[in-house]
Amino acid sequence: MIALLGASGYIGSAFVEALEERGWAFAALSRAQLDYARFPVLVEYLRQQKPSFLINAAGFSGKPNVDACEVARAETLDGNVLLPLTIAHACEITRTPWGHVSSGCIYNGAKLLREGRWEVETDLARPGFQKLRREHPERICGFNETDCPNFTFRRPPCSFYSGSKGLAEEALSKGNGCYIWRLRMPFDERDNARNYLTKLQRYAKLYESINSISHRGDFVRACLELWERRAPFGIYNVTNPGYVSTREVVQEIQRVLSLDREFAFFSGDAEFYNSGTRAIRSNCILEVDKLLGAGVRMRPVTEALTDSLKRWQATAELCVA
Amino acid sequence: MIALLGASGYIGSAFVEALEERGWAFAALSRAQLDYARFPVLVEYLRQQKPSFLINAAGFSGKPNVDACEVARAETLDGNVLLPLTIAHACEITRTPWGHVSSGCIYNGAKLLREGRWEVETDLARPGFQKLRREHPERICGFNETDCPNFTFRRPPCSFYSGSKGLAEEALSKGNGCYIWRLRMPFDERDNARNYLTKLQRYAKLYESINSISHRGDFVRACLELWERRAPFGIYNVTNPGYVSTREVVQEIQRVLSLDREFAFFSGDAEFYNSGTRAIRSNCILEVDKLLGAGVRMRPVTEALTDSLKRWQATAELCVA
Repeated sequence: MIALLGASGYIGSAFVEALEERGWAFAALSRAQLDYARFPVLVEYLRQQKPSFLINAAGFSGKPNVDACEVARAETLDGNVLLPLTIAHACEITRTPWGHVSSGCIYNGAKLLREGRWEVETDLARPGFQKLRREHPERICGFNETDCPNFTFRRPPCSFYSGSKGLAEEALSKGNGCYIWRLRMPFDERDNARNYLTKLQRYAKLYESINSISHRGDFVRACLELWERRAPFGIYNVTNPGYVSTREVVQEIQRVLSLDREFAFFSGDAEFYNSGTRAIRSNCILEVDKLLGAGVRMRPVTEALTDSLKRWQATAELCVA
Repeated sequence: MIALLGASGYIGSAFVEALEERGWAFAALSRAQLDYARFPVLVEYLRQQKPSFLINAAGFSGKPNVDACEVARAETLDGNVLLPLTIAHACEITRTPWGHVSSGCIYNGAKLLREGRWEVETDLARPGFQKLRREHPERICGFNETDCPNFTFRRPPCSFYSGSKGLAEEALSKGNGCYIWRLRMPFDERDNARNYLTKLQRYAKLYESINSISHRGDFVRACLELWERRAPFGIYNVTNPGYVSTREVVQEIQRVLSLDREFAFFSGDAEFYNSGTRAIRSNCILEVDKLLGAGVRMRPVTEALTDSLKRWQATAELCVA
């Protein structure tokens, strides 16, 4: 039996579907039912129920977005640092293997080949980068799991959310028996306040940059597959291979959904950060060689994007979120 | 045997002296010797050595002062939140009773009696407060252990240091078998960069306010006495009874040390916070009825202050700190 924490969340609910799809027995734990943030309560549960694996999809990512984490610091640290640490200790004591949903947002930028050396470039929005991308894509490389995160409390500036996720990774990396699954800007075919494709259609103005992103269903299936294959524990970037610019995604939205509306873009960082936005945003490219090397298949990002848009389902949720 | 973490720090070294004074067997653990921040390492140590009590005097308070915590966020959270949580879990599993050095800086202000009701007043520097204090001291009351901290991430604004200490208290309060000892602005007769009396003599300009403060030796002796008396676990304010204003302490320094130098004061909050200071400061009055009610004796703050100044020892440390 698999124990799932955070089943009601955006990623947790995708785990529920993927687990049902596979027919794996699981228990979706809710805080109301079991106060799993309390160490002795969780230890007792693990000792009694002996799950073969635990998934932590709980966390605090801010509502309506990551800006909220700048203010709700206690909730952010509670959900993203203290809870994972408590789970780590409980799993350690009961020798329960587990996986933690982390985030690629602890990086900013990409690596560029300059005069024979790979150097970190943090401004992916600059025009020179687009030119390099067209002419010499081979000189662009994402961050892999051995690269030290560069958008964290130890490597400021960062958002409070990114800081909290980075701190948790650091703490969990000290232990054994844990997968750290890095998600980035989840999207799929279902209209939802947390879906990247929804956000792009809802925001009044967009920020042009370049990112690796994760199809929600592909993400959770890849996470489960790592465990199914008994891949070595540790950190895995779990995004769809490749990267896309905001404008490219918008063009694909317009093309596939046959939208004739215009999308407005911020003129640059100055306008974006002066528009009431609080948290500094991370934009980054991640490599997924480690994931693919473990035998897990992931669709290229453009394929996952186009497929999601072709299946696009606008729901009433837009109105209530 | 008592296990002591953070023995080399300002408070930890006072615990060393107090333990030696009492002739209690103890082991001062250093991170170099035992990486006690790692949960399995600490659990193994507690299982092997079976200390009767553990003292956590480790933490990160910033150098040269609390402003450093605004920048060194990972270190602040690591030392003040993740480490205590790890200790709590290890002590829980091994049923080791323990005590944690917390801080009264998670409060700001005092409680004033207004029209028959106790209300929180956060500005103790305002002139009206001094008048009230002279004319109606009975209408002023400090925070006790049942009052909700009001200078934390949950009750902003706060300093990053205070936020971290408050978050740890919240997490530790969920468990059992732990003393939470609240220290405030430690001082004693020995010149030291962390001694409140040293700071007042060293700063170019001073901030006028009112605070409850803790004599370092009195503090650690009171902590040990709580355990010796098997007082109920939980939170204890551990300051010397009463409170003092910055000007009063300065006058006592001038009087007892026969200093003829002048002490300059900031004209108010505006000048203080525009002077390069980063962290918002907490100034507060704490009640110690719970501590005294447990049978622990604490000298009144004025007695502890005058005694410290009479024994004042200027050391070479001033130059190296």
